[in-house]
Amino acid sequence: MTSEGIARTGNNLDPWYSNYAERAGGLAASEVRALFAVASRPEVVSLAGGMPFVSALPQELIMSSMETVMREQGPTALQYGGGAGIPKLREQILDVMAIEGIRGTVDNVVTTTGSQQALDLVTKLFIDPGDVILAEAPSYVGAIGVFRSYQASVVHVAMDENGLIPEALRQTIAHLRGQGRRIKFLYTIPNFHNPAGVTLSAERRPEILDICRANEILILEDNPYGLLHFDEPAPNALRSLDEEGVIYLGSFSKTLAPGFRVGWALAPHAIREKLILAAEAAVLSPSSFSQMVVSQYLSQSDWRGQIDTFRGVYRERKDAMIDALTEYLPGLSWTNPNGGFYVWVTMPDVLDSKQMLPRAVKELVAYTPGTAFFADGRGRHAMRLSFCYPTPEAIRLGVRRLASVVNGELDLLDTFAGTGSLSVRASDRYDEAPPADLK
Amino acid sequence: MTSEGIARTGNNLDPWYSNYAERAGGLAASEVRALFAVASRPEVVSLAGGMPFVSALPQELIMSSMETVMREQGPTALQYGGGAGIPKLREQILDVMAIEGIRGTVDNVVTTTGSQQALDLVTKLFIDPGDVILAEAPSYVGAIGVFRSYQASVVHVAMDENGLIPEALRQTIAHLRGQGRRIKFLYTIPNFHNPAGVTLSAERRPEILDICRANEILILEDNPYGLLHFDEPAPNALRSLDEEGVIYLGSFSKTLAPGFRVGWALAPHAIREKLILAAEAAVLSPSSFSQMVVSQYLSQSDWRGQIDTFRGVYRERKDAMIDALTEYLPGLSWTNPNGGFYVWVTMPDVLDSKQMLPRAVKELVAYTPGTAFFADGRGRHAMRLSFCYPTPEAIRLGVRRLASVVNGELDLLDTFAGTGSLSVRASDRYDEAPPADLK
Repeated sequence: MTSEGIARTGNNLDPWYSNYAERAGGLAASEVRALFAVASRPEVVSLAGGMPFVSALPQELIMSSMETVMREQGPTALQYGGGAGIPKLREQILDVMAIEGIRGTVDNVVTTTGSQQALDLVTKLFIDPGDVILAEAPSYVGAIGVFRSYQASVVHVAMDENGLIPEALRQTIAHLRGQGRRIKFLYTIPNFHNPAGVTLSAERRPEILDICRANEILILEDNPYGLLHFDEPAPNALRSLDEEGVIYLGSFSKTLAPGFRVGWALAPHAIREKLILAAEAAVLSPSSFSQMVVSQYLSQSDWRGQIDTFRGVYRERKDAMIDALTEYLPGLSWTNPNGGFYVWVTMPDVLDSKQMLPRAVKELVAYTPGTAFFADGRGRHAMRLSFCYPTPEAIRLGVRRLASVVNGELDLLDTFAGTGSLSVRASDRYDEAPPADLK
Repeated sequence: MTSEGIARTGNNLDPWYSNYAERAGGLAASEVRALFAVASRPEVVSLAGGMPFVSALPQELIMSSMETVMREQGPTALQYGGGAGIPKLREQILDVMAIEGIRGTVDNVVTTTGSQQALDLVTKLFIDPGDVILAEAPSYVGAIGVFRSYQASVVHVAMDENGLIPEALRQTIAHLRGQGRRIKFLYTIPNFHNPAGVTLSAERRPEILDICRANEILILEDNPYGLLHFDEPAPNALRSLDEEGVIYLGSFSKTLAPGFRVGWALAPHAIREKLILAAEAAVLSPSSFSQMVVSQYLSQSDWRGQIDTFRGVYRERKDAMIDALTEYLPGLSWTNPNGGFYVWVTMPDVLDSKQMLPRAVKELVAYTPGTAFFADGRGRHAMRLSFCYPTPEAIRLGVRRLASVVNGELDLLDTFAGTGSLSVRASDRYDEAPPADLK
């Protein structure tokens, strides 16, 4: 919806229809959202959501953290706090980030209502309508949603099994600059990418930073999964190599629990003051209680050991998924992540993951169609499979059901058109051909 | 800061200076914010903040609510939830609103990260740069902050001891329409106004609704203090008289505790779908844990009785403040609220509350200067005094200190200019003369 072309009067369904801001036109229900309802039916194996397996948490320890907070600092926990968050937690966040080579100061850490809020605030701070945000192809559906809600133009940059491709980044920037477009930042998930499952190689990291520095493009590094590696740890964070050019986003949603909604941003000093003002305008202050419980949990628990536990859980599930894909869907291709929650599956060109979804749900398996992760309509032949939440047995069952759906579709196509052979595309990039104007 | 007139390059202090969005120019540290640091020093009597007296809460009951939630539904409380909030809490919110005559459906309630977030989301949904928001004169500082962050133009409407003045609303609308301005909504705090302390009379409520309906102007009714009356309850909510024309905002921050950050919006059906999408873009979902603890507390406590307790606490403090003002500052005028947290004090024209503040802090008392509550620079001769947090004794001491500052300033003016007589302005409106273009 834009204000042009629509009479400024209401309609029968919504008397306020003509009163919305231009940006409200960018709000659309995501494909993931519609799936939440479906996936909640117990008989469906959901490979769709990104819910961490919180049942693996030491619940007694979390309860005792809550009790300690309430007994020792109850009135503080129940009260408003500062807009930047609680100093003690922000210090502990420095310890968490140190694991990935980041050295920062408490002053530059801003705790937020999940790292999603940090995404929202950074976008609000930097994006005028029409400004360009660069993002991997594919990219996180929730980021694309925020970017759209501020009328950004998201332009995807190709990635392969080593993450974002530097040469593709260079070409995309040159092309956009040639068109006179304003590029505000590069949004990237370097580790155990959502949805692609790949990790930006150590070799490429300085190169990506150099390209952005040379072009005066800020980097928004989103790293919720960084500590959840299976074998080798991820290379050090981009932020560890550049203090002034990177806003780093972290989260306790995957390493602890999303129910607290505690994430953070580490911003260059000049930016973080504006970030705090934007945060205060949005929510006054993040929840004191949530922050203090997380802080107390970090103080009194072996949180590194708990992350090891999560790693073991997710590794077993990832293995189950790869094994099942190998067994049941040998004609498809997929990424084999070394951490995180997701596998990106590429199907033959003749199949459309969004069109296939209702049939899959009928067969009691759910996934996220690839189109959810592109701002430009690509991704039809791909899907994201999550291995974070279901048990290995359920994953195996889900992939078996998926295979029956995929094979059923191919049989159908064979019957009607004779084109359904399992001809997997030979591309090693995780997108399809980019739109014509980026070729 | 606007993009015009500023070269699109960085500067020494901030390399990203030229990259911010236009709207970032609307972000400014509020006068209230600077005071938080000051007010936290224990020797200062702060009459500045709006912190509820959470020590009056039954802490054991809150702890037991947390335990029950964790024992019975731990994994749900620690997980992501739906964007609209938890259905059970939204049902209980209907019970809370029923006290003020509101009948709604669970579908149209959206829980948010404090009602501040609801303010943010509604503004994001409706405001294009330059759109007008009508607000009382004075109005809530945090609302003015959000409105500015989306580049709204806030136009104040005069109020008196019976709240917003219908005739002033009519004239302001006519004047703005005459100028071709787009008015998006009226933001109003009908009950125990922040900062003015007054309540919109029952007689005026249908009239305000009629004016807005006739002019197709949406009403944003912000009611965090409604249940905290001292004598007579406030008249029924505006929303109780109009389902389609009012977005109602409520909060548990004042009736329970702000540390959970749980508020809500009750929106017309057509609007609430967009509101949920905007909420999901901003934070994915509000904290499951916080919502479930609040829900459990409402289930297992006599929450109405607890609100009665709060009413008693705040009534005693309000009386202490009015008594002290009468005794120590008889030459000033003030409002005498029947609920809420705030008294609005008007000083002689020769005094400037913002300029006087450093002196007050030196005398160990803090307040909020009146200018914080206007978008147009008015309020210099006024201040907001909060009676919610300090004890009656501290309030008495604080007002005595304030009197010594006020009288000291007047003596000084007398000495130098002979103009310092306590000539309180005779106006019964809580603003000064409106800007020339609104006369």
